[in-house]
Amino acid sequence: MTITITAFERSPDRGRGLARDMRVRWALEEVGQPYDVRLLSFKAMKEPAHLALQPFGQIPTYEEGDLAIFESGAIVLHIAQHHAGLLPENPNARARAITWVFAALTTMEQPMIDREIAKFMEGDQPWYEQRRSMIEERIRQRLKELAVRLGDADWLDGEFSVGDLEMVSVLLRVKGSGMLDDYPNLSAYVARGEARPAYKRAFAAQLAVFTAASSG
Amino acid sequence: MTITITAFERSPDRGRGLARDMRVRWALEEVGQPYDVRLLSFKAMKEPAHLALQPFGQIPTYEEGDLAIFESGAIVLHIAQHHAGLLPENPNARARAITWVFAALTTMEQPMIDREIAKFMEGDQPWYEQRRSMIEERIRQRLKELAVRLGDADWLDGEFSVGDLEMVSVLLRVKGSGMLDDYPNLSAYVARGEARPAYKRAFAAQLAVFTAASSG
Repeated sequence: MTITITAFERSPDRGRGLARDMRVRWALEEVGQPYDVRLLSFKAMKEPAHLALQPFGQIPTYEEGDLAIFESGAIVLHIAQHHAGLLPENPNARARAITWVFAALTTMEQPMIDREIAKFMEGDQPWYEQRRSMIEERIRQRLKELAVRLGDADWLDGEFSVGDLEMVSVLLRVKGSGMLDDYPNLSAYVARGEARPAYKRAFAAQLAVFTAASSG
Repeated sequence: MTITITAFERSPDRGRGLARDMRVRWALEEVGQPYDVRLLSFKAMKEPAHLALQPFGQIPTYEEGDLAIFESGAIVLHIAQHHAGLLPENPNARARAITWVFAALTTMEQPMIDREIAKFMEGDQPWYEQRRSMIEERIRQRLKELAVRLGDADWLDGEFSVGDLEMVSVLLRVKGSGMLDDYPNLSAYVARGEARPAYKRAFAAQLAVFTAASSG
């Protein structure tokens, strides 16, 4: 059955791979599943046809035959559970890999989203610099704890898994800030993720959408 | 095999059921699994023995035989996947229930955590009221979208599932703020969750820990 995902017609990140469809594309590339993409304007995302699929008016969604789901975390986990390549065989190792999915999307990503919202909504307020510094302190605390746990391992728990896919994706949100520079093992970890052929194919695919929209 | 979870020796929420062990207790009660609880002081949570189990120094953790995992979302999903009662049999319905787990813990909960952190860290700042109002606007937007999706259904997708367990748990974070009052169907949804015998048993168990610690 054909897999169809949704993505921004013109991504606000200008094709830097930070929109949530990137994580789904990466997962599909890792497991070798082809997919179609339906592009949505900001207007279309808030219209009834899309809200029926995604009640919060966001991307991505995932459709395959009778199945329709949303939330990139749920989609990526669904892909990992239905195709070989993103979860270990051993049941305990599987559970640990899924633990890292949640650690990435809640514990690690929460303050990073806060940082981006603050910049967008409070960037011109007199308190912004103080706020930014408070948020970045929270992010650094998490980065420090993660760096200690990763140590000199290549991936968080044995072989590359869906947990690493999500964690690298989350860390990429702060790569441009320089905050990762204080944690060389995390920088190297992110670079290992970006070097994977599946990551590169997914990145190129989402960039091509932005490039086409910009020249169109 | 015995299941052992960790929880606060003295919960900062004073036994109101908002600490993350509550969600795990509720899940275990729904599926009828007994469990032991190891209580931790704030000091013990940051010591090497606990950090080996939970690299961010948080509760809860979950141990069962050789398996050790953390992140309440991962633990609750693990329980749901290994015991009957929290996930439907139909594969598509299972995937949709898991979608709601992620929607609860990321899309819905992110601004709620932000609200609590702002109160704690910025409550005495001159900008706090303005900040609070901005965050609550973000929360209200999500509540509105969720209320539209839920409509007059009892649960988010058919029978009660792990997705409802997480969503009700997340909505309880703002119950005390009065923000739910504008969405009677969400208030009724939360009340249905709280009325479940498994919820009540879990709530009583976590409250007993706080009561014992306070009188000790």
